[in-house]
Parts: sequence; C-alpha cells; structure tokens
Amino acid sequence: MKIGYLGPKNSFTYRAACESFLNEEMVPFGSIPLCIQALVAGDIQRAVVPNENSLEGSVHATIDTLFRQKELIIEQEVILPINHQLLTIQSGQPISKIISHPQALAQCAEFLQHNFPDVPIEAVASTTAAAVFVAEHPAEPVAAIASKEAAHAYGLFIQEKNIQDTTSNQTRFWILQKDTNESSVFHDKATKATIYVTLPTNRPGSLHQILAAFGWRGIDLSKIESRPLKTSLGEYFFVIDLVLNQPWALVENALEEIRMLNCNVHLLGSYAVKKIGEGNEREENQSLRGC
Amino acid sequence: MKIGYLGPKNSFTYRAACESFLNEEMVPFGSIPLCIQALVAGDIQRAVVPNENSLEGSVHATIDTLFRQKELIIEQEVILPINHQLLTIQSGQPISKIISHPQALAQCAEFLQHNFPDVPIEAVASTTAAAVFVAEHPAEPVAAIASKEAAHAYGLFIQEKNIQDTTSNQTRFWILQKDTNESSVFHDKATKATIYVTLPTNRPGSLHQILAAFGWRGIDLSKIESRPLKTSLGEYFFVIDLVLNQPWALVENALEEIRMLNCNVHLLGSYAVKKIGEGNEREENQSLRGC
Repeated sequence: MKIGYLGPKNSFTYRAACESFLNEEMVPFGSIPLCIQALVAGDIQRAVVPNENSLEGSVHATIDTLFRQKELIIEQEVILPINHQLLTIQSGQPISKIISHPQALAQCAEFLQHNFPDVPIEAVASTTAAAVFVAEHPAEPVAAIASKEAAHAYGLFIQEKNIQDTTSNQTRFWILQKDTNESSVFHDKATKATIYVTLPTNRPGSLHQILAAFGWRGIDLSKIESRPLKTSLGEYFFVIDLVLNQPWALVENALEEIRMLNCNVHLLGSYAVKKIGEGNEREENQSLRGC
Repeated sequence: MKIGYLGPKNSFTYRAACESFLNEEMVPFGSIPLCIQALVAGDIQRAVVPNENSLEGSVHATIDTLFRQKELIIEQEVILPINHQLLTIQSGQPISKIISHPQALAQCAEFLQHNFPDVPIEAVASTTAAAVFVAEHPAEPVAAIASKEAAHAYGLFIQEKNIQDTTSNQTRFWILQKDTNESSVFHDKATKATIYVTLPTNRPGSLHQILAAFGWRGIDLSKIESRPLKTSLGEYFFVIDLVLNQPWALVENALEEIRMLNCNVHLLGSYAVKKIGEGNEREENQSLRGC
C-alpha cells in the first residue's frame, strides 16, 4: 500500500504517518493539495495531512481542499505532540537569521520576540528544508527551527530545546482514504465525526437552528469554525466536529433535519482518535519503530 | 498623529491606511503584533492591520493578538480589493522561481498550479520584499507576486495581470485605537460590532445558548469563528461579528445575558465599514491622494 504524506521525510506529518503504518511505502508530497489530489487520482491508497494545531488552529489548506472533494473520508485522527528546537551547525554559534516553516515560526513567536527581537526571521517551505539549509551552509550564521529528529538526521546542534510557546503544543493529523462504500456508516470505534455545512443563503438564524438540532438531542460539538466560501467576503461554510456521545441514529436524524433546512451537509466520516504519548521515553520508543 | 501599519511602504495595508488618513505621519511595522504593541505602548495613535481576506479567511495574528489586549477598540473597518500581479524584471523573461508573501501565494494557488506546476514557490516576508528582490537581482529568473503599485514603485514588468483565484478578492482592515472612554458606547454610524466570547468551561450547549440570545432578539450574526485558546487542543474562544440591525440596547441586553451564563465577553467595538471601489479609475484616483 502507498501512503502519501506532507513531506519531506522526517517532517512531523511523516512521524504521524509512521505511527499508523509500518512496512508500507511512504510517498512524500510537496503540498497538502498535491497529496490529497494524488489520493483522489488513485496514485496512493492513504493520505496523511495535518488538520489542526493547538496554537495556530486549523490548517486551512487541508480544510479548504477537502471541501472541494466529495469522495474522500477520514479514516482516523492521530494527535502528535509538537516540540520545536533551535538548531545551529555547532554549539554557541552566533545567529544572524532564523528560518523555518511559517507555522513553526508562528508557534515559537513569543520565544523569538523575547530572545531574538532584532534577528530577521525568514519563512521557508518546511522545517526540514530549514534544517537542510543550515546543514548545507556551515559558514552562514543561520539557525533553523525544526524537530529533534531533523537535528539527528542532519547532524545539527540543538542550541535551545522545546522553544514552542506552550508545553502542550499538539497537532492533529487526518488519515484519509477513498470512500469505497457508504461513508455515513457508523464505525464501532469512532468517537468523533466531522461535517461540513453550507447554509442555504446568508439566512440569519440558520446557524442557530443547526446547533439546536444537535443541542436538543444532547449531541456535543467539540469544534465549530467558519471558513470563507471564496465567492465573496462574508460568505462562509462551517466545519463542525461532533462528539459521538449519543447513538449514531440520533446523529443521522440531526443531519437529515439540517438537510431539510436546505443546508448542504457533507459527512467527512466518523472515526477514532489516536493520541501519541508526550514523554521523552515514549518518543524514543516511537523513533525505534523503524520508519 | 502617528499612524502605524503593517509595512513595508506600498503594502496593501499601507493603501488601506492611506484611505483613512491624509497628511499624517505613517509608521511601518514589521509584524502585526509589533504594530499592535506600539499602539498599546502609546508610540502611535492608530494601528491599521488586516483582519480577514475573502479567500484565506481570518488573519490569525490580528485576531489572536487582540484577544490578549483589553484596552484597544476598533474605530473603523476598511475593505480593499486585492489584485495580485506576476512581476518580472522585463517582458517575456523565463521564470524558474516565484516568490511572495504566504497569503498572496495562497490567494493565487490555483493560478500557480495551473500555469507554473513545476516552478518552485518560495515564501518571503511581504509582497513588497518579493518585488524588491526581483528589482535588485535582474540577472536571476525570479518572478514576484505583488501589487500594481509595487510594480510602479520598483520599475517591474507586469507579466500576468490580476492572477488571484477569484475576481472578488478583498481584504478587511481594522483601524485600531486606544479605548479612552467607554468602548461599549454605540456609535451613530456603526453598522457592525465584533465581540470575543470565551465559554465558561467546555460546557456542551453553551454556544447554542449564546446564539439563542442573539437569535430571539433578531440580531444577525455575520461571522462566527473559533480560535484556539492556546492552552490545549480543543479549547477555543469565539470571534463573533454582529450586524447592528436592531437597537443597541438589545445588543447590550444580549451581551449582559451571555455574561450571566458565565461566559467571558469582550466587546472590541461598534464601528462603520468603508468599502473602497474596485474600478481602475477609482484606483488611479486613490493613488493620487498623495500618500
């Protein structure tokens, strides 16, 4: 089986993919849309992409690309602790520029502002690309923000450890597959479901009605977020996460009722959530799993 | 009066700032948090920052920084059409790399994928920085995505016009000021209000209750969005835009009721919305305004 993921190798997404797939062929992609499109085209059998970070919120490229695909479902969610390291070519090296992926830079914003207020920050394509740049330019006083794994892979020195702005920095990843049978079937181990809802027109009060359909059935929401429809300013669709604390039949009834309000409802799947441990020991064990 | 804005000069935010302030001292800032902090510190009297784009959604740096500041209010919103151009040093030049700000790259994602599928894309600090790079490296086959104004300012050739993925690409900007008197006072010309709401605990159904408080009073919401509280995954606050189509007293009652549900409510201000025209003529006129 071919598993596509947001690359390059040693990225956080690669680690999340390795948590669920052993001994499968891992295929890196340069962007989230490219990875999802390869799954739609049948070039890969699973796609692993980030969907939300505890500091930065939803990953829009994932949410927006999936909104335009109706044949994919979420098979599982994996939650991974994210720890960023400040990497240099050697100990005590002066730093005149810091590079990393925009999300990693955002997750370390307070650290950077406090410790390196005057050092220019530059966005690059990935945390791995940042680490590779530092490794390949030993004469330049540039530091990268990337993972411990990247430090090991490219022989870099960890100048500052775990520099993200909170200790509970985590990212959710979705494992996506093609919807071969009926996606609306409830899976035994599912604890969560994700739906996309588009309101009929910009009819005031529609959102209130939707939430009421879940509310009086005792179905809890764990997330609701508006995303632009990209038609014009002020037009949105909603991403809603449901906690599956009630019989699935009640969820189906609620979805049916919402459709009768002329809302467009798309169920992205009901799925289980797998949380990966945070301790260093656990991390060591994970990296021993051979992928 | 000193007007701070997300720089550099000739950025889209600069244009938005010029729409509201003539003959004032304009002060560029390198990031949204730095600009907002300067306003809190009293170094500037107004801050102009983007808060939402029709393709990319909310500007998180603005939403999240304001969540941590309780002494600022929104004085006005300015809506600006955003047109991106593909700029090169001269006509017909080959392109082996395209650079721009991450938001601009995202807003042109479909164009890039369709027309330049194999050309590497690189994120830089701003659209202006991208244009400057191209102007200063005439020997390199690099193209920048930036505004028409940047093309004029740095003498670049517009190789492809208006390459953003929809023709209705617009960005909202907030003009912020310090809350000198009571921010909760309703302003005569206000058509919109923005509030931040934090739910008491992760109590299921709270959001439904909040929307009900507005719903039965006939107060329309034009936006609701969750943002991570940055404590742990799954904890959010909500940004809600209210349409001021009902007497202000009703809004105040609704806010009071929501507070009684143990929600934390912060009113960022009630304000007028100024929409800038899209036509070329209008744009020419704007650029004649001398700032």
